[in-house]
Amino acid sequence: MGDLAMCLDEEASRHFLQEIVNILLAYMCKLFKRSTKVLDFHHPHQLKEGLEGFTLELSDQPENLEQLLVDCRDTLKYGVKTGHPRFFNQLSSGLDIIGLAGEWLTSTANTNMFTYEISPVFILMEEVVLRKMMDMLGWSNEEGDGIFCPGGTVSNLYSVLLARYHFFPEVKSRGMSAIPRLAMFTSSHSHYSIQKSAAVLGIGTENVLLVKCDERGKMIPGELESSIASAKDRGLYPFYVSATAGTTVYGAFDPLNDIADICERHGLWIASSVTWNPHKMMGVPLQCATLLVRKKVSLNFECNQLCAEYLFQPDKHYDTSYDTGDKTIQCGRHVDVFKLWLMWKAKGMEGFESQINKCLENAEYLFDKLKNRTDFLLVFESKPEHSNVCFWYLPHSLRNLPPGCERDKKLHAVAPKIKAKMMEEGLTMIGYQPLGNKVNFFRCVFSNSATQREDVDFLLDEIVRLGHDL
Amino acid sequence: MGDLAMCLDEEASRHFLQEIVNILLAYMCKLFKRSTKVLDFHHPHQLKEGLEGFTLELSDQPENLEQLLVDCRDTLKYGVKTGHPRFFNQLSSGLDIIGLAGEWLTSTANTNMFTYEISPVFILMEEVVLRKMMDMLGWSNEEGDGIFCPGGTVSNLYSVLLARYHFFPEVKSRGMSAIPRLAMFTSSHSHYSIQKSAAVLGIGTENVLLVKCDERGKMIPGELESSIASAKDRGLYPFYVSATAGTTVYGAFDPLNDIADICERHGLWIASSVTWNPHKMMGVPLQCATLLVRKKVSLNFECNQLCAEYLFQPDKHYDTSYDTGDKTIQCGRHVDVFKLWLMWKAKGMEGFESQINKCLENAEYLFDKLKNRTDFLLVFESKPEHSNVCFWYLPHSLRNLPPGCERDKKLHAVAPKIKAKMMEEGLTMIGYQPLGNKVNFFRCVFSNSATQREDVDFLLDEIVRLGHDL
Ligand SMILES: Cc1ncc(COP(=O)(O)O)c(C=O)c1O
Ligand SMILES: Cc1ncc(COP(=O)(O)O)c(C=O)c1O
Repeated sequence: MGDLAMCLDEEASRHFLQEIVNILLAYMCKLFKRSTKVLDFHHPHQLKEGLEGFTLELSDQPENLEQLLVDCRDTLKYGVKTGHPRFFNQLSSGLDIIGLAGEWLTSTANTNMFTYEISPVFILMEEVVLRKMMDMLGWSNEEGDGIFCPGGTVSNLYSVLLARYHFFPEVKSRGMSAIPRLAMFTSSHSHYSIQKSAAVLGIGTENVLLVKCDERGKMIPGELESSIASAKDRGLYPFYVSATAGTTVYGAFDPLNDIADICERHGLWIASSVTWNPHKMMGVPLQCATLLVRKKVSLNFECNQLCAEYLFQPDKHYDTSYDTGDKTIQCGRHVDVFKLWLMWKAKGMEGFESQINKCLENAEYLFDKLKNRTDFLLVFESKPEHSNVCFWYLPHSLRNLPPGCERDKKLHAVAPKIKAKMMEEGLTMIGYQPLGNKVNFFRCVFSNSATQREDVDFLLDEIVRLGHDL
Repeated sequence: MGDLAMCLDEEASRHFLQEIVNILLAYMCKLFKRSTKVLDFHHPHQLKEGLEGFTLELSDQPENLEQLLVDCRDTLKYGVKTGHPRFFNQLSSGLDIIGLAGEWLTSTANTNMFTYEISPVFILMEEVVLRKMMDMLGWSNEEGDGIFCPGGTVSNLYSVLLARYHFFPEVKSRGMSAIPRLAMFTSSHSHYSIQKSAAVLGIGTENVLLVKCDERGKMIPGELESSIASAKDRGLYPFYVSATAGTTVYGAFDPLNDIADICERHGLWIASSVTWNPHKMMGVPLQCATLLVRKKVSLNFECNQLCAEYLFQPDKHYDTSYDTGDKTIQCGRHVDVFKLWLMWKAKGMEGFESQINKCLENAEYLFDKLKNRTDFLLVFESKPEHSNVCFWYLPHSLRNLPPGCERDKKLHAVAPKIKAKMMEEGLTMIGYQPLGNKVNFFRCVFSNSATQREDVDFLLDEIVRLGHDL
């Protein structure tokens, strides 16, 4: 093994890796103890100046192994413990042991998803896992294909790319100037990845028409209908509608069936592809995202294929339809499937189910608690449909103000102030944001099944403790 | 830790992870033994049918931990050992112990690069590493910014995206229909990622003009000049030139200075960005790729920023210019920097230098050997400029045929036949491809510094053994 790690012989390599593993195991033990802080906050300039000997700067001279181990410990020490049961910030959260084992194996195998030649097992696992997911969506064997992508945003980009190609295959060679001006539709509560896709693909963000939602954040089908009509009137070519099952902030579900009916009537792309992001609610370590396409397998290939001969030789001795790299917009592609495959083996459908139910129960528990409090205000009175719960905290000074502009102005400053103190103290973490005409509110989103009711209680107590006197 | 891994308590989790580590360490030991096969080939249908109890299929019932360990062992068994010193196929190859340790830590930290809030250390490491790389390019502190991307292909896509935005900022909101028809230029030997970018971005592959190369695969500056002129004549707007330092197949270096001069004269984008792919020659585990941009930091932000309020709150208590996620076309982003940072600490510049020199020496050794053989034919008589060496093997039956069509036709079939046998036997692996008017030839590309001269000797002996009687 010697020359591999430079100057490291086999025994030293084994020893070094075992030391790293000991550090990681010790980290995990601490992580799951509730007495451990979620983070040890420092401002960028503090971390850059170097803390207690932890320096980020790179020198030209090599460091010794002992120092590297210290660096690793420090990296974890000053990082944020996203796997902590009291981390309620944006996903991903949690740390699944099986998924982690899968990731360690993946990096040891260190291969590349472009061809069956060098990734026979992982390429087939991709097929098996995607097929399983498509079965769950109720798609038959003849229809359907998919791909693992580096994030759900890229999955969404693929879906727009495929839709564009489906309607205008000439776009691949001739570009956007050869086709009509396109219009796409998504709800005003949708994730920004739809707009990013429009910017990247050359469609333009102003050609993404944001359809109005109801109070609960669900797209209003009638609004979609009239938005399509008015786009047509303005000479645009509507081709794509994105609907969300669990919006980012509210966790709202768009009325998929109604929207699909409208799309069918107008011949638009929806129900034709699904972005399914296992690194969110399923708790798979980042990155793990998929796009599933309800079309003939050939579509992905036709849209993206360039047949580079140095990689995709047609005269190989095996079935080269498994050289799936040419379906993608990448070349080298990280193996993201294995950890999910291993987790699926370990948990089965029932394991994932109970894990997700745990998150939904926590959301309901939080909702029920908030409903009965006068110092908190729910953004909605209705039960959460998903694992998101949105709420304001009313410090003492605001509690007697009537709802309205003046209170809103003050309320807007509350969440950022609490969040700042919360990060400085480091015992828990939760995100906040404004949305539409709603001033800054907290959004608690559960995706870590290690979180217990006591952690939810703790979160509220912390908010009160930090915000009471604001 | 119990509920985290479902049904796994702390002791069981620790035990399971240690068992996995033992499997991985045992795999590495075997990997570096030259007596171990590089692969144990099976056709897709064989693997899908299940081999000796290794089944890829997922059931709804959970498997027990013992079975999971067997699954992990089998996954490695039927995979390709890309870290083996006799794996000469496409990159990535090698298995760097420090990089691997970095990846294990990264997956344990399981965080997301979108904000400083949840990735303080990694975000700053990204800045430090990118700055170091820009220093090496000779860029001053005022100019220059960069980003880690999921692969060099995505880096290249970013570069085209930024160039388009630089010339036509209105494209972001208004799309391609608001701007002139664009033309981009790259050499006929360049990587297909440039064409993929054009397809994705809506520029169209036919607007990527492939500039002629000399025999050695280098772009001919005069040809670029006339290609630009003819694009202008055809009403296209030339905006972007890609040049390659180390082409995929030949390892050729385009004449960067001459090309940059031409671009400057015509006001085109080059030298403005560099794709640098540490998961190739630097031996960093996949994925690790960067784009470096010689422009004001703000460009990346302006081009891609959408200011999603749920993520990038402007009223946070720290310097939010470190919330670099809004520079990217992703949302969630895997931490790719840490393994590179750790390797850099461990090796210093000198470590990387000697590692790469080792690869270049191997290429020269192979070239020198081939020069003196009559059963092999070099694609070039001149010394390799990089770690790629391209050659044909002439089986006995072809050795007395004169060069020309008839021999070429037969020669074209030789490499695939040898490769097929080679994979079936599994003792080594090398890639082949045709290029331009050259029929199928082998390309040996060195990027694993564990490879020794004896491995190079072995490769040639194997080719002779498998191909002699063809
Ligand atoms: C010259 C060149 N550029 C870009 C790439 C793409 O890199 P990646 O596989 O990381 O996407 C390659 C890959 O082989 C390449 O050879
Ligand atoms: C509804 C929705 N879609 C897509 C995404 C993007 O996923 P990723 O972060 O994997 O790119 C998110 C991320 O939060 C999301 O909430």
